This record gives sequence, structure tokens and C-alpha cells, in this order.
Amino acid sequence: MIFRRVLQRCVPLGLHRTPVWRTLASASREIPALTRDRYPVQRGSFAELNDNDVAVFRNILGGSSSRVLTEAAEVEGYNIDYLRSVRGCGRVVLKPRNTAEVGELMRYCNDRRLAVCPQGGNTGLVGGSVPVFDEVVISLQLMDTIEKIDEYSGIVVCQAGCVLASLEEQVGARGLVMPLDLGAKGSCHIGGNVSTNAGGLRLVRYGNLHGSVLGVEAVTAEGRVLDLMSNFKKDNTGYHLKHLFIGSEGTLGIITRLAIFCPTASRSVNIAFIGLRSYDAVRQTFLAAKRGLGEILSSCEMIDAPSLDSCTRFFNLQSPIEKYPFYMLIETSGSDAGHDEEKLTRFLEQSMEGGLVEDGTVTNEPTKMKHIWKLREMIADSLLADGYCFKYDISLPLDQFYDIVLAVRERVGKLAINVTGYGHIGDSNLHLNVSCERFTPEIYALLEPFIYEYTSKLRGSVSAEHGIGFLKRKYLHYSKQAEPLRLMHQMKQMLDPNGILNPYKVLPPDTPQ
Amino acid sequence: MIFRRVLQRCVPLGLHRTPVWRTLASASREIPALTRDRYPVQRGSFAELNDNDVAVFRNILGGSSSRVLTEAAEVEGYNIDYLRSVRGCGRVVLKPRNTAEVGELMRYCNDRRLAVCPQGGNTGLVGGSVPVFDEVVISLQLMDTIEKIDEYSGIVVCQAGCVLASLEEQVGARGLVMPLDLGAKGSCHIGGNVSTNAGGLRLVRYGNLHGSVLGVEAVTAEGRVLDLMSNFKKDNTGYHLKHLFIGSEGTLGIITRLAIFCPTASRSVNIAFIGLRSYDAVRQTFLAAKRGLGEILSSCEMIDAPSLDSCTRFFNLQSPIEKYPFYMLIETSGSDAGHDEEKLTRFLEQSMEGGLVEDGTVTNEPTKMKHIWKLREMIADSLLADGYCFKYDISLPLDQFYDIVLAVRERVGKLAINVTGYGHIGDSNLHLNVSCERFTPEIYALLEPFIYEYTSKLRGSVSAEHGIGFLKRKYLHYSKQAEPLRLMHQMKQMLDPNGILNPYKVLPPDTPQ
Repeated sequence: MIFRRVLQRCVPLGLHRTPVWRTLASASREIPALTRDRYPVQRGSFAELNDNDVAVFRNILGGSSSRVLTEAAEVEGYNIDYLRSVRGCGRVVLKPRNTAEVGELMRYCNDRRLAVCPQGGNTGLVGGSVPVFDEVVISLQLMDTIEKIDEYSGIVVCQAGCVLASLEEQVGARGLVMPLDLGAKGSCHIGGNVSTNAGGLRLVRYGNLHGSVLGVEAVTAEGRVLDLMSNFKKDNTGYHLKHLFIGSEGTLGIITRLAIFCPTASRSVNIAFIGLRSYDAVRQTFLAAKRGLGEILSSCEMIDAPSLDSCTRFFNLQSPIEKYPFYMLIETSGSDAGHDEEKLTRFLEQSMEGGLVEDGTVTNEPTKMKHIWKLREMIADSLLADGYCFKYDISLPLDQFYDIVLAVRERVGKLAINVTGYGHIGDSNLHLNVSCERFTPEIYALLEPFIYEYTSKLRGSVSAEHGIGFLKRKYLHYSKQAEPLRLMHQMKQMLDPNGILNPYKVLPPDTPQ
Repeated sequence: MIFRRVLQRCVPLGLHRTPVWRTLASASREIPALTRDRYPVQRGSFAELNDNDVAVFRNILGGSSSRVLTEAAEVEGYNIDYLRSVRGCGRVVLKPRNTAEVGELMRYCNDRRLAVCPQGGNTGLVGGSVPVFDEVVISLQLMDTIEKIDEYSGIVVCQAGCVLASLEEQVGARGLVMPLDLGAKGSCHIGGNVSTNAGGLRLVRYGNLHGSVLGVEAVTAEGRVLDLMSNFKKDNTGYHLKHLFIGSEGTLGIITRLAIFCPTASRSVNIAFIGLRSYDAVRQTFLAAKRGLGEILSSCEMIDAPSLDSCTRFFNLQSPIEKYPFYMLIETSGSDAGHDEEKLTRFLEQSMEGGLVEDGTVTNEPTKMKHIWKLREMIADSLLADGYCFKYDISLPLDQFYDIVLAVRERVGKLAINVTGYGHIGDSNLHLNVSCERFTPEIYALLEPFIYEYTSKLRGSVSAEHGIGFLKRKYLHYSKQAEPLRLMHQMKQMLDPNGILNPYKVLPPDTPQ
């Protein structure tokens, strides 16, 4: 038995998990090409912003210049996405403080036929949160009030611009936990999370946002305020319209307020980091973890060797165990430390005795747990450091989950620096990343549509948790047939007759804007 | 310490939990008045069924008479709801076997302007599942194939007519559990559960159906098949349209197939049945249970004294503890019997020492657990035995959860036999029941709209888990404002332009049919 109870070689870096997310984005990297130059996209027949529009915006937002940004330097950051893969040329950023202001802004923009791009923390990965052309940016940054936390029912009511990490802190103080956790939590907004139906690291335990979000308030393209708020887990009063705004990425309305159910916080957290010889062992270990850890399993992540290598090399981190072809990070959260430890130890011992797991380490020390989480969460950043990274976020059946990584690796050969696969195996969600020195049409053509076709053949999902945004809309048909696409279009027509809300996003490019 | 480890006085009845549900419904009780006579409702301008229609139906369904019912005696049961509160006069019942047949039937009915009432297990409690006038009944009874159960991902794919109890049995054999559990599970269909967004007894643990249902296939009023199936917990490919069919009670489409996520089954189940002096003690005990039992809490039910009295008296059951003003049934489900028992015992000891809980009993013996569950699940039936029972299923803030029972009791005085409150306190869901000898306009006028107005003032929900159906549609505005109602109407128009699908249901009566 080579299982170590205590993580020996782990070097605590003293870094908090979240802020690291921004490390690379804020570094001075190449300014990306304009979206309109890199991609074949035509501007819709929207009006162009003029000085009178800006004056009206200033009037609606109380005349304060700090809430109507027009200086090129101030506006630039709102035009470029986190991955620096798209860049718009929006000329104005508006920062409403409340729902009524959002309503007024939208009514005006709709009347004027000005296109609008709603923006949360701008941490999206599919180019959905920045303008494609010159859309007016409505940033929810200033709408960050937490209105109520009810520890009995577990419900938090807040504005859409609350940063996930601050919500986590506030509900944590009341014995609750946010039902989602993302690497981007230090920047992302809860409204953006809900608009994108963000998944993340805790989904295996607390389910998806369609289950956790109890109420939504949204402003439509025409400036109508839809009060779909509810403080109840059971509320069957008419059509469940709030779900239209969960995952439609700001194309049907701007989410302004939310009511979210928060589970009781766990008192005890443990992490195991284990090494395995094959993907099949990973899959078997996941099933064993579901059965052995049951209700305390809170994360189940897979990491392949190239992913971990990239992360440890770029960030100079040490892996707590020897090298293996595959690794898993398994987290438990429960209400009794002794019970949880007993369950986890038993599961690991059985998995090692059964030959599934080769080596591993387990810890409940916060610093060491943070270090291990970094090994998983900073893979994405480390791959960006290669220059450019093509990111695919797909759901696949577990029996063919990893084959696509091998297929892509063979296909792109030496054009790529790294072809890696990692992700939330607990939710059948693979992050396939292909890093290279820079974006080239040659490697792009090898990757797409190949990856989407491959996924589609397995009846997988071409976007698991990141959404469709701008970058994936032409691949939507690989996961959705004609009838659902037609209904999506009807829905868009109904809620946004002028097509001004987040145009060029989600709906396939042949959909009239 | 008067806590008993073993339930001493519990008399096992040897009855399985489910079949009992039907005891009263099948008893020869008064045939209810026709809906059109009891309620002020006008027939829509739909076509009337003729012999040619029946011939076409027989042709579509393969000529077999057993799948096209027209004999009055055969059709009657499909016209009367479980509570016997409404009765339609549909003349034909159709039993398709697959989605294509449902599509053909709907296309024909839409062309002919024949109104249609889709029906699952007909266990609904708001008159949503039977015709109001002469709608064609499409019963999903024969669409009961379980297509796939994947123990790795935990996903079951099945037709909509599967009975919940048989799904439970089949997924149970693969180490999984259905994420919902209802008293009606021996009869209700999973398609009906999803159409109604049924809540039930496990919601506190596994969340609601919007979280658990991963894929929906539905046939629209025009006979279009919408394939919104997905086998993945993370699938962000376009608008999340499947949620339109969850909780819209068959007014937007007929659900034909489903993919549902099933959690890992628990190896250990414990039940505590406890007595408390006040509602406030109930509320505090719920919070203590959430914190003390955490991840193993799987049900948290409240029962008031009149509810338990009614149940024990009518079914000649014995309560395992002395009389108290309030009782709670707390269930734990977990993966380690020893751990679970330790947590539950600790929680109960602390609650008794803290003065919250007066007395109680705890058991993990299946027969005794079944007996205790009966005390909760058969309350509804026992109240029906008084003659007629007005049932209200509302969500209320926990700090004012029980006041409404006292207010109604005072208001109706001796007109009622019983005014009781029980329900899922873990989900803020109260079942308020008022039993009397028979339906009278006098008591009806005292109860409605009073109860809905009271609920609305507290910003509660006028329908927690039962839905709106026919009986509650005129009260929908107490929980939904004008804008959402307008959008509901637009949605109905878009998906069912002729209004043929389950007319007179869900949408307020002033909505054009």
C-alpha cells in the first residue's frame, strides 16, 4: 500500500484559488484581430450610435459620466473576451444600477434599433459576452446587491451583477453554500452564470442551475420587466418561463435579479488525488466513487498526463504523486469529518486493492487542498501560455469519453504543442484543448468541424457548459435538429422582434438577425 | 430520555405503500357532477367528434379496437379525476404506442380542430388530466418502454407512459434511485409527473424535475416532433426548450419520451417520527435537521394533530408516539448505515436536550418504516372519507407557514369536519385540507378566494406541486403578474395556434381558447 495519508511533497504557494484565473488575461498579450476581420460575419441592419444617443443614456443613468463610458481606453476591455479570441468595436458601455434603468435603456435601444450586448464578468469562453460589431454594452457590474439570505429555506435573493465569490462568502457566513463553483468565481457574475447555465465543479453534487435557480427577473429587448421571481422550491403556477433565460446567453432578455437555492454548507472537505494506468480505470473508479462515497462525493475530475505536465511546468507546481497516464481529483464534502474520512479511506483502499488506482494522496488540510485544486484549475491557463489555445467543451458518453483526444492528437500531429483532455468526468464533460503557437487557418481547419462531427456521431453535446455564444453557433446543428432550431428562432422573434439583443450569438448564422 | 430506539407499538399492516392510494378512488362513491354544470365554463369553438374521425383514429392506430375506446363504460374512467371533483364527457380514448402515432393523431386533430386532452396515470389533483367537455383523450398508457438505463452516468431513457413505481424498480436493480417519489407512484406516469413538475417526498434531497430531467421529446399541437433529448447533465446547446414542457401540464405539447438523471441509491434508510409542542419548534427542528443531518436528510415532513387523528382513526392505524400538537417525519438515506444512525441519534438527542423535540421513535426496519410512512401518506385519503375534501397545495414562507391553517379553521367553523395542515416543510410546501360532508357553495365561497388572497399577501405560491390544471386557473393571477401571463399566452399561441391542446387548463379563463 503506497497510499500516503498526508501530502508530503506538496508545496503550498500561498495563492488564493480565484485571483489566479486572471493572471494570464491581464498579462500584456497580443491584441486579438477584430472579430469582423477574422470571421465571416455581416453587421445586421442596426442603427449606429450618435451623440444624441449618448446624451439620452447619460440622462437615464443620472448624468454621471462614470456610468456611461465612451473613452476608447475605458471601453476596450469590454470589447475583448477573456481568451482574447474575439474583439468587438463597441463605442459605449452603460452601467445601470437597477432593473428600472435596464428597462429604460432597453426601451430606448429597441426604439432606436441599437443592438445591445449584455455583459457580466466577461469570463465567458465562447465569445458571447463582448460585442461582435459596435453593439452597446450594458454591463451589470453595479448591480451587485445581495437583498436577502434566508438560512431556513436556504434561499439567496440578489441582483445579477453579484460576483460569485462574494455570494459564496456571504451565504457561507449563514451556513449555506452556493450550488455552483467555477475557476472564474472571483470575476464572474451570477447573472452571467445563469445566462450561460454555467456548470462547474460542484454540479456532480448539487445539480445544474435549472434545479437551483428558483426565480429570475429579466428585462426583455423591448424593455418589459418580467417578474419570474419565486422564493420557493415548489412553485407550479403556470409555465416555467424563467428557464428561457437560463442558458439563452442574453439573447432573449437581460437577467437583472435572481433567487437561488443554496444547500447547507459542509463542515468537512477531503480531497484525494490519484494516479491511474488507463482511461478505463478512470471510468471504473468513477462508478466505484459514486457507489462508495454516495452522498458525500462533491467533485470527480479527470486529468490526463499532458494536462498535468503543462500545468506543473508552466506554473512550477509539483504533483503530489508520481507520473501516470491519468489522474483523478476526487473531493468529498459532508457533515461529519470522521465519517467522511472513513468512507474515503475505505473507497481508496478498495480501489487500490482492486487494481483500479495505482497511487494517490489524500488530504483535508486547506492549503494542501488548494494546491491540489490548482493542479486542476490552472490547466486551462497553462495551455494558453503556449500561445493560442483551441478549447472544446463537449459532453460524451463515458464509454467513449477519451477516444476523441487520441483521434485529434493524431490528426493535428506536430501542428499542435499540446492536445490534452481533462474535465468533469462525473458529468460526462470533457475539456479538449489544443494549444499551438498561434491561431492558424491550417490547424483551425483540421479541428473544426472534425471535432463537432465526431461528437455528433456519438450523440454528444457540442457545448457542455460553456454555451454557444458567437464562436460555436455554426456548429449548433450538430447537436440540435431542424425543429428545435426552428422553435428557437420563433422564440427569439417573439421576445426580441427587432433582434437587437446580443445579435450574432447562439442562433445559427443563417438565422435572420 | 424517552426516545425509543425500536418502534414498540407499531402494528405492521402488511400493505404495500403504493396500492393503498387507489383504495378510496375505486370505492363506489357518488358520481361527480359534470364539470360544465358545476363550474362557469364555456365550450370552445372546436369541432365535434364524428364517425369518420373514429375511423381515421382506428386507421392510424392499426385498426385495433382495444386502442380506440368509444364505449361509454370504457371511456368513463378517463373522464373523472382521482378526487372526483371534475367530470368531462369525452367520447373517445386513443392509445398510441409510439411517438409517430402521437404525431399523426395530433396532426389530424389539429387539422380537424378537435380538442385533445393528454392523459397519463390520471392521478392529478387539479382537474388537469381529464376532459372538461368532449375533448379527445390521448392516453399514454401503452407507451411504457424503458429504453436504456446507464449505471455509469445514472441516466434512464424511457417512454412517457412508464409508471413511476416500475421505473423505480428497474433503476433500483442497477443501483440507482428515481429522483422523485410520490404517494401515487403505483399509478402515475413519469410523463405526467414531468408535465406537472411533480414535487413529492424526495425533493428536499434530489431537487426538482427541472434539474433531473435531462431530455424531453414532445409532440406539439400541430403534430411536430420536438427532439429535445439529451443524455448529459451538461448540455448548453441553444435555448433550453425542454423546460417549456416541464410543468405546462400538457397545454404546449405531449411529452412522449424522457431522459432522467437518477442518483445512486442509498444503502441505508432511517426514519424518525417525533412529537413537538408548537409550530415554531417544527421550524427550528427543520433547521437543526438540515445542519445536523446534512447530506443524508432525504425527507422532512410536518403533520399536525388533526391530520394524524384523521389518518389513524379512518385506517385504524396506531401512532407510535403519544399525542402532540405537531409531528415530524424525518428520513435519512445514506451509504453507510452506521454513520447514518450515528448522525440521526446525535441530532435527535441534541434536539430533545434542547427542548425542541418532546418524544419520538426511530427505526430502520422496512415494515416499521412503511407503517410510519403510511401515517403521512394516507392523510389525504382519510380526509376524503369525510365526504368531500377541499385541497390546497401552497408554498409559504416558513416563518408564517402554519398561520393560514388557524385562520381557515376559524373562518369555516362548524361547516368543516376537519381543517388540517401537513406537508413538506423541507420545501416550504403546505397541504391545507378542509373536509366536509359534501361540496357546498357556502363553504366554497368561504375558502376561495380567501386562501389564495392570504397566500398572495405573503408572496407565497398558490400551487406548489399540484399545478394549475382546470381548478386553479382563475387564481393564477395571485401568483403571476400581467407580464408573465401575457408571455404565457404568447407561448401558447406560438405552440398551439388553434388552442386544441388541453384547453381550459393552466391559462386564466379570460385567455382566448
